[in-house]
Amino acid sequence: MLSNHLQNGIETARLVWSRLPNSDDEALDEVGLSKKSDGSRSESLDYEVIENNAYREEQAQRGKLMVGYYVGVKWFFALLIGIGTGLAAVFINISVENFAGWKFQLTFSIIQKSYVAGFLVYILFNLLLVFSSVYIVTQFAPAAAGSGIPEIKGYLNGVDTHGILLFRTLIGKIFGSIGSVGGGLALGKEGPLVHTGACIASLLGQGGSTKYHLSSRWLQVFKTDRDRRDLVTCGCAAGVAAAFRAPVGGVLFALEEVTSWWRSQLMWRVFFTSAVVAVVVRTAMGWCKSGKCGHFGSGGFIIWDISDGQEDYSFEELLPMAIIGVIGGLLGALFNQLTLYITYWRRNYLHKKGSRVKMIEVCLVSLITSVISFGLPLLRKCSPCPEVELNSSIECPRPPGMYGNYVNFYCGKDKEYNDLATIFFNTQDDAIRNLFSAKTIHEYSAQSLLTFLVMFYSLAVVTFGTAVPAGQFVPGIMIGSTYGRLVGMFVVNFYKKLNIEEGTYALLGAASFLGGSMRMTVSLCVIMVEITNNLKLLPLIMLVLLISKAVGDAFNEGLYEEQARLRGIPLLESRPKYQMRKMTAKEACGNKKVVYFPRVVKVADVVSILQSNEHNGFPVIDHTRNGESLVIGLMLRSHLLVLLQSKVDFQHSPLPSDPRGGGKPIRQVEIKGISIDDIHLSSDDLEMYIDLAPFLNPSPYVVPEDMSLSKVYNLFRQLGLRHILVVPRASRVIGLITRKDLLIEDNENSETVELQSTSVRSL
Amino acid sequence: MLSNHLQNGIETARLVWSRLPNSDDEALDEVGLSKKSDGSRSESLDYEVIENNAYREEQAQRGKLMVGYYVGVKWFFALLIGIGTGLAAVFINISVENFAGWKFQLTFSIIQKSYVAGFLVYILFNLLLVFSSVYIVTQFAPAAAGSGIPEIKGYLNGVDTHGILLFRTLIGKIFGSIGSVGGGLALGKEGPLVHTGACIASLLGQGGSTKYHLSSRWLQVFKTDRDRRDLVTCGCAAGVAAAFRAPVGGVLFALEEVTSWWRSQLMWRVFFTSAVVAVVVRTAMGWCKSGKCGHFGSGGFIIWDISDGQEDYSFEELLPMAIIGVIGGLLGALFNQLTLYITYWRRNYLHKKGSRVKMIEVCLVSLITSVISFGLPLLRKCSPCPEVELNSSIECPRPPGMYGNYVNFYCGKDKEYNDLATIFFNTQDDAIRNLFSAKTIHEYSAQSLLTFLVMFYSLAVVTFGTAVPAGQFVPGIMIGSTYGRLVGMFVVNFYKKLNIEEGTYALLGAASFLGGSMRMTVSLCVIMVEITNNLKLLPLIMLVLLISKAVGDAFNEGLYEEQARLRGIPLLESRPKYQMRKMTAKEACGNKKVVYFPRVVKVADVVSILQSNEHNGFPVIDHTRNGESLVIGLMLRSHLLVLLQSKVDFQHSPLPSDPRGGGKPIRQVEIKGISIDDIHLSSDDLEMYIDLAPFLNPSPYVVPEDMSLSKVYNLFRQLGLRHILVVPRASRVIGLITRKDLLIEDNENSETVELQSTSVRSL
Repeated sequence: MLSNHLQNGIETARLVWSRLPNSDDEALDEVGLSKKSDGSRSESLDYEVIENNAYREEQAQRGKLMVGYYVGVKWFFALLIGIGTGLAAVFINISVENFAGWKFQLTFSIIQKSYVAGFLVYILFNLLLVFSSVYIVTQFAPAAAGSGIPEIKGYLNGVDTHGILLFRTLIGKIFGSIGSVGGGLALGKEGPLVHTGACIASLLGQGGSTKYHLSSRWLQVFKTDRDRRDLVTCGCAAGVAAAFRAPVGGVLFALEEVTSWWRSQLMWRVFFTSAVVAVVVRTAMGWCKSGKCGHFGSGGFIIWDISDGQEDYSFEELLPMAIIGVIGGLLGALFNQLTLYITYWRRNYLHKKGSRVKMIEVCLVSLITSVISFGLPLLRKCSPCPEVELNSSIECPRPPGMYGNYVNFYCGKDKEYNDLATIFFNTQDDAIRNLFSAKTIHEYSAQSLLTFLVMFYSLAVVTFGTAVPAGQFVPGIMIGSTYGRLVGMFVVNFYKKLNIEEGTYALLGAASFLGGSMRMTVSLCVIMVEITNNLKLLPLIMLVLLISKAVGDAFNEGLYEEQARLRGIPLLESRPKYQMRKMTAKEACGNKKVVYFPRVVKVADVVSILQSNEHNGFPVIDHTRNGESLVIGLMLRSHLLVLLQSKVDFQHSPLPSDPRGGGKPIRQVEIKGISIDDIHLSSDDLEMYIDLAPFLNPSPYVVPEDMSLSKVYNLFRQLGLRHILVVPRASRVIGLITRKDLLIEDNENSETVELQSTSVRSL
Repeated sequence: MLSNHLQNGIETARLVWSRLPNSDDEALDEVGLSKKSDGSRSESLDYEVIENNAYREEQAQRGKLMVGYYVGVKWFFALLIGIGTGLAAVFINISVENFAGWKFQLTFSIIQKSYVAGFLVYILFNLLLVFSSVYIVTQFAPAAAGSGIPEIKGYLNGVDTHGILLFRTLIGKIFGSIGSVGGGLALGKEGPLVHTGACIASLLGQGGSTKYHLSSRWLQVFKTDRDRRDLVTCGCAAGVAAAFRAPVGGVLFALEEVTSWWRSQLMWRVFFTSAVVAVVVRTAMGWCKSGKCGHFGSGGFIIWDISDGQEDYSFEELLPMAIIGVIGGLLGALFNQLTLYITYWRRNYLHKKGSRVKMIEVCLVSLITSVISFGLPLLRKCSPCPEVELNSSIECPRPPGMYGNYVNFYCGKDKEYNDLATIFFNTQDDAIRNLFSAKTIHEYSAQSLLTFLVMFYSLAVVTFGTAVPAGQFVPGIMIGSTYGRLVGMFVVNFYKKLNIEEGTYALLGAASFLGGSMRMTVSLCVIMVEITNNLKLLPLIMLVLLISKAVGDAFNEGLYEEQARLRGIPLLESRPKYQMRKMTAKEACGNKKVVYFPRVVKVADVVSILQSNEHNGFPVIDHTRNGESLVIGLMLRSHLLVLLQSKVDFQHSPLPSDPRGGGKPIRQVEIKGISIDDIHLSSDDLEMYIDLAPFLNPSPYVVPEDMSLSKVYNLFRQLGLRHILVVPRASRVIGLITRKDLLIEDNENSETVELQSTSVRSL
């Protein structure tokens, strides 16, 4: 049925296509993805055209070697990502804790003499740090603002945001978050660390940053988007693993929250990366324990250990815990909604006025934060210390200069402490430790907790979306543990007999707020367990998360989804929309005209077609000898651009080139986000032709025109495609593939298979 | 291009198809899966044919209600699965621990007088329990033998094994595993519990067992395989969560090990099920703590708590830990290989001789096990108790009748213990607790551990594959912790200064053996942490697992994959085979002839075609007015059988029925694994015709004939398909679907979309 000539052409195309350097299983399977649609990232496309005769064996040999090398490099990169992210996390942590430590040490020593001077020093110290952060971000790395998680999520879903994975973003993120977190703003360093991990992974995948001459040719093995996405997934997991010292949580975060296409092979590699991070962080912390890292090193591998918390729970406690879940859902949904409005306003009005406004804004926020966190505790009356229990390791008031509960701040007597200062005038990590702490019943008054909750919630909402690197995990834990502890206090008062720890309720509150805002389940659960080292509370955390997520889902989407949508990142959700069920594939195409190429096309036509539209994929259509038309494949814009730029494959004849013709040299062409306007062709060039057959993707995914759109959606999303061709219904069926046909044994000789298949009978 | 008449037909087909009761998004998307291929399970197929005029609004209304009800029932079922599996697990645990408790109590009280009499009682007690187990399994529920995990894995991969999810299998599994575990065989109850959870889920999904009149019409909402698979996935997670009291481990086990098609929506529900299990088990255990459950109730929610184990590790310890990983990989791979040979031999020779042989075999194994576990400790010389440390809660020898270390068995003096009896003459749970125990350095001699390792390994290999319910987790932990502790002993001797706990090495050993045999990573890691409550060892467990899995993978496949293959369960692996890259879809179809139906087909033809082959899907081909043929869909064998049985849709005319014709009544037909031979048709019936258009799946997935087979494989596996039609290349492209086309906003009016799509321009 096919003309011989065309058959040859397709055959060649298939072979040549499979000879691209990326032509291992995965790359071939995901060829629809092999180029980014917007071309904004610097990318290189290598392709080769080689003589067709007798290269099969050689290629098979080289292919196997290549695959081995490729797999080796993959694992080596996973190792490097782990080490890099681990070190970055350690660096950030050391810096932040030292800056914050100096700040509080200095302030505390000054307020022994004058509260006004201490106040000023405190404000200035914060302002300086925050200003350095916003300066770096606005002047040097604008993409480093925010948490970066929505963007990474978008990237892994298939949408590339400009500049999100550059070297300068990495640097901006690291130093920016040191400034913003050290400066005491109501934000965390965990989200930025995820972004940092992703940046490190992506830069490794590119073989270093070409712009800063850190590139290495040797490492440029990963050309497909799929490989890069895999690396970035590893990077995300590494980021979480490093930020929370929660390796399993990192794997699950990558799995549940960020990736869109997950393969079980990848899990194994992500797991390895997380393990490496754990070892690196642990080693660094062991080294710091001896006091070489200044203020850093007090904590162990588990950040907020509450393993000495509540052992058991009684049935009556489930009700207050459910209430915590509901509160978390409500406050979380409200947080998402408020930040959405504010971010919308910022994007559309405030931040359009330039970076000076951004800087002023952040400095103002810093000023307000400093005033509140220093000023409010001043207004609070100190409480007398509780009577010292035996065996209690908690001192009241805490010894000067150390971290701990019962901060003596603006108190008249020695044996007094200021409960608001204990949580407010402290680093967030220490405040959380104080809120989670067991054996400290009635340390905080309800009034202080409520004040703190309202104030900190407002600060977190206002701070979100400013031009500094900002994570929402730690603020979320702060907010949640405050109302959790508040509920715990009521429970302690109400059920008097039970052995209830307020710190346990604080932990549940933290889980509920994060669940209500970010809507994660399994990964959050594991992260909460890993950071608090209390497995006994696992069922309770699960329960609270289930409730808070369900309540939150009734109001709006998760924080990252909301933000991604606001930033114009079109995430494909895992579930098709309801109305898609009633639509067909044809309807989804709308009334766009399909622009297609013939097999052999004039260069001038290519140029004019590429200029006239912005499509990224073009079907290629050929005609058989008896005049029937036939779709022979899909040509990508990026590949066309390479062809146009290299000019080597131009030919004078408008006839298909003989695929068995003279051997063309192997070569590599690199394109970096070029557009059609960057390519200059002489008028002679324009008169020539290109035979597209060797370069196209010969078997793009196709769907019949009347397939239900929800079915198409699943196909698209499950396989991570970029283009699906909608074609008419087939006129005949050549065969039916079932499970049995796909069960080819390894030991079966592939030649037998080929011999069998020569006698295919069709209908 | 399409004739009007045909267009109508297809349109109707699409509408009617989407009106099947299962026609929510998921069911429609997965319609290729809606019937099992072997039809061996009892299934019901509901379908309706309704008048076509003006039912759209009504249907939309009903559809929404139906979807709400459907989602509600889904969650309700998740709750029920959690409660059911939790209760089943508690029941099994209470029974096993009580039987084992009575047995040891009785034996210990008798051996105070006579070791011979005690020996005989011990043997008889074990024999009785094991015989009851094998009797139940062979006579009543043959599918309950083994762990069931390979079969469940196969089921979730799309292969239905006969009888695996029946009510009698559930009963056989529960009572069988009580007998086999209580009887002291070298097997565990954890694998069977996973199977139990899956059975409970599947029975719920069927609305109870119809055979035993426990069915409820009201709950029969889940008709598609997809829903059933989702339920079974929940059941698996619940099983693991209940077996190990590890809810997060359960979710991850279901995710990593058993499911083939995972959706993030499902994760959420699986998580809920696990949480329910955790609460149920915990509540039951709280109730048992007061002593109402006999010997059960000593353990807490964490099975083998070693949170007081090693706090930290030094760099030098990484080498012995890596060695443990390597040993685990080697022994695990050897275990897989040996069990593979033995199971092969059993299946092909021994078990073909009938159930009497099976019973004798199991009884023999029980006899050998009893003799070894009682006899070997007798030969072992007792050791003197170590000097009592202060604050040590471990007594030596342990008080009579209790569980604990330092068993006094056949010892001359009072202050002596028998180290072999401590691990051998004990329930496996207690033996593991003793092996994991901290602060018991040098409790075991290397000789005893080696003896135990060799003996128990051999017993585990021999026991595997006998006709009793048998899990491999606990034996694996036993084996692993033995050599782990052995390595730990050498480390303690070698690095004398370090604070090393042998119990920690035992834990790592257990992880390594399971990793080397089952090749799980993340889920196993989480399970190990959850059952031992020691988060600090997480990085070490990860490291050991990575090594042991890598070593094991060098030799063979994982235990479950090997067993599944042996049992003829064709699992589709996540990665296509290498040679598939070079094959096309057409080649995969082989030289099988495609059997197809015309749109209107004579009943006699349907019968003869169904009798002449065993295909489960048939393309339906129609002709347009100008004589072109056109594939209009895929008809499933099971649907054809329903049509033949009901006879309502037979028509006299060989012309397509007018889709707008008279309203046919709504009705439900139930088929239970009928085959074509069960249907009796009169000769009049055979002369009539059926119009297949309203009943077929109008848009099966299609691939062009020359698509690379590895691409087809991914499509097949990612979407969980049963049939893919291989068709010729398309002649034209109607449209191109990209990400943008799939981003339909919720608030967009669907009518606008339909208006737009009326003006589709094609090429």
